[in-house]
Amino acid sequence: IVSKLPQVGTTIFTTMSQLAAECGALNLSQGFPDFDGPQTLREAVCRHVIAGHNQYAPMIGLPALREQVAAKIERCYGRRLDETREVTITPGATEAIFCAVQALVQPGDEVIVFDPCYDSYEPAVQLAGGRCVHVPLSLPNFAIDWERLEAAINSRTRLIILNSPHNPSGALISRAELDLLAALIRDYDIHLISDEVYEHLVYDGAPHASVLAHEELYARAFVVSSFGKTYHVTGWKTGYVVAPPDLTDELRKVHQFVTFCGITPLQWALADYMSAHPEHVDELPAFYQSKRDLFCDLLKGSRFAFTPTPGTYFQLVDYSAIRDDLSDVEMAEWLTREHGVASIPVSVFYQEPPQDLRLLRFCFAKREDTLRQAAEKLCRV
Amino acid sequence: IVSKLPQVGTTIFTTMSQLAAECGALNLSQGFPDFDGPQTLREAVCRHVIAGHNQYAPMIGLPALREQVAAKIERCYGRRLDETREVTITPGATEAIFCAVQALVQPGDEVIVFDPCYDSYEPAVQLAGGRCVHVPLSLPNFAIDWERLEAAINSRTRLIILNSPHNPSGALISRAELDLLAALIRDYDIHLISDEVYEHLVYDGAPHASVLAHEELYARAFVVSSFGKTYHVTGWKTGYVVAPPDLTDELRKVHQFVTFCGITPLQWALADYMSAHPEHVDELPAFYQSKRDLFCDLLKGSRFAFTPTPGTYFQLVDYSAIRDDLSDVEMAEWLTREHGVASIPVSVFYQEPPQDLRLLRFCFAKREDTLRQAAEKLCRV
Ligand SMILES: CSCCC(=O)C(=O)O
Ligand SMILES: CSCCC(=O)C(=O)O
Repeated sequence: IVSKLPQVGTTIFTTMSQLAAECGALNLSQGFPDFDGPQTLREAVCRHVIAGHNQYAPMIGLPALREQVAAKIERCYGRRLDETREVTITPGATEAIFCAVQALVQPGDEVIVFDPCYDSYEPAVQLAGGRCVHVPLSLPNFAIDWERLEAAINSRTRLIILNSPHNPSGALISRAELDLLAALIRDYDIHLISDEVYEHLVYDGAPHASVLAHEELYARAFVVSSFGKTYHVTGWKTGYVVAPPDLTDELRKVHQFVTFCGITPLQWALADYMSAHPEHVDELPAFYQSKRDLFCDLLKGSRFAFTPTPGTYFQLVDYSAIRDDLSDVEMAEWLTREHGVASIPVSVFYQEPPQDLRLLRFCFAKREDTLRQAAEKLCRV
Repeated sequence: IVSKLPQVGTTIFTTMSQLAAECGALNLSQGFPDFDGPQTLREAVCRHVIAGHNQYAPMIGLPALREQVAAKIERCYGRRLDETREVTITPGATEAIFCAVQALVQPGDEVIVFDPCYDSYEPAVQLAGGRCVHVPLSLPNFAIDWERLEAAINSRTRLIILNSPHNPSGALISRAELDLLAALIRDYDIHLISDEVYEHLVYDGAPHASVLAHEELYARAFVVSSFGKTYHVTGWKTGYVVAPPDLTDELRKVHQFVTFCGITPLQWALADYMSAHPEHVDELPAFYQSKRDLFCDLLKGSRFAFTPTPGTYFQLVDYSAIRDDLSDVEMAEWLTREHGVASIPVSVFYQEPPQDLRLLRFCFAKREDTLRQAAEKLCRV
């Protein structure tokens, strides 16, 4: 068998989570909480599984959940959506991104991604017969380099994949940057996928500049988010994608043959919970900011260098003062084996990693005692 | 936006289920039960959701569930599997089929499907850049036409998609036919996807000839099945795919970027239930055969013509004695609107439907009272 994805190995998330398990290390690598989703949300699942909501959901998602998504988006970003024509529930944000790519990209098309970038984007583009053009974000702030972006755009560019809050760096795209982007692509036939799965995880009072709040960009965009990240239930594999009707039509043609639909009882439970607890998303920034602040405060006693992250539940740290001799992949492995804390090396998210990159990503979506234990170990390094 | 799937509309399953809902008709169209999965299985979900099994499952599936799948396969088909290297849990059988197609098919490759065929196969092949070659099954028994199959095979053929028990006809492939197929493709670089989601739904004592029990074919096959069909929980979107290690490796490369993993608490619950109730699958043939027999007995009072189906939970009926003037699509719509019973027209599963095809598919995975009501209405037609 000739591999369709010859360059692909097992994802770094699987690799590091497995290594953490093998070594009995604290797992701050793969992005998921070590605490549970809200009790009432989980109880809602029991109710619906017992009440008999266990057969196929509608292909586009349960009406009640699509309505809750539309209500939340109106409240957060001021956009009114037609939930029948613009909102699609998917088995996870990864599937939403994959389907959007398949719906847009034809063989020979170019897709611009910003490095470091999430590892599912490029294989999705490759399977569609397209080619990723990697535009590195400028260091140290992981901001868009507008000259390089402009130079990368041409008539073959079909799609740009945005990700804000940005994984792994936590960087945010500002509203002013969205305006710049709109001006830049105005005369091209370019679409957007805006991966906003960390939309509610922004700190220090910063707003999340959603593509949903940008008229001109939304007209050509798929905006993707994740109930798993927002409600602390990453194993429920439930996400959504919002797009104008013409784009949604094409996305659904693909989605209906990739997975057909999302998971029925979980959709019911999320709809119940969102309707009873609209404040959940408003409380998330403070909830995760206190975790970030705790972790960062404790890490001040270490030799790692960092600036507190503006978004996501990931904190980057520079280890060059500790082991400048190790690559980040080696450092992540060494820390896991020797110091009992697993992280994610940042270079794996690059096509061409900067030579002197000495960054690790820690997930702080963890209980206070986990963060304290991890920081203690890291301060001993 | 240029459509990647220009020929595709909304699936017939969504169309007919919606029409049924609009008309208040009995929905015997889309393939799902109107009764619930086992109480203990559903209670197991509650236990795991409350106990906190809500974060990402391993990409390849929960070990406990992969072990149960391997144990079931050894018991049913006598094959011992390495569940780490050969079993992958997926969010539904549709995703498994989609990923297997993406892993195998390169642009320009030909894929043989047997018409009538399930509607997700061709879009999956198209999105991989391949081309479906449609080999019609011979009527009235929907058996493989070996001359046409042999004529369709050439050096560009990369894949044959088998489906037994066959949707929509219920036809079974025999062990002898698997031997014929093995001989036919022996000298070609051809792989198989064997869609066996109805593997446990076979009647009148007939065995299911699984590709898993065929040494030579298994060496080049992806075998796909569905917990949703087997445990009456189609809305749980949980399936699996079994393949030799080299094929599994390539499938997982794709799967990890299409959806990443299946749904954690549902995998735990299925593992518990399968371990406590291995007899469930043994009892399924009798359970569904009594539904088939009830439905067929009652239909004897109608003017529909049929032979009881050998497998699946679908019964085909010929309506030519009733309304020979209507195409099957028209007939399905007419029956739904005028007589309150929704079905699936068979022609939609063909590239070129036979001109005189007058067949509808009814799903009999329904409660006894539903089947009685439906048959009563159908006898009045
Ligand atoms: C799908 S596993 C990866 C989870 C995640 O989003 C991350 O760790 O970046
Ligand atoms: C995924 S909806 C279709 C269900 C089914 O398998 C059928 O009705 O044939």
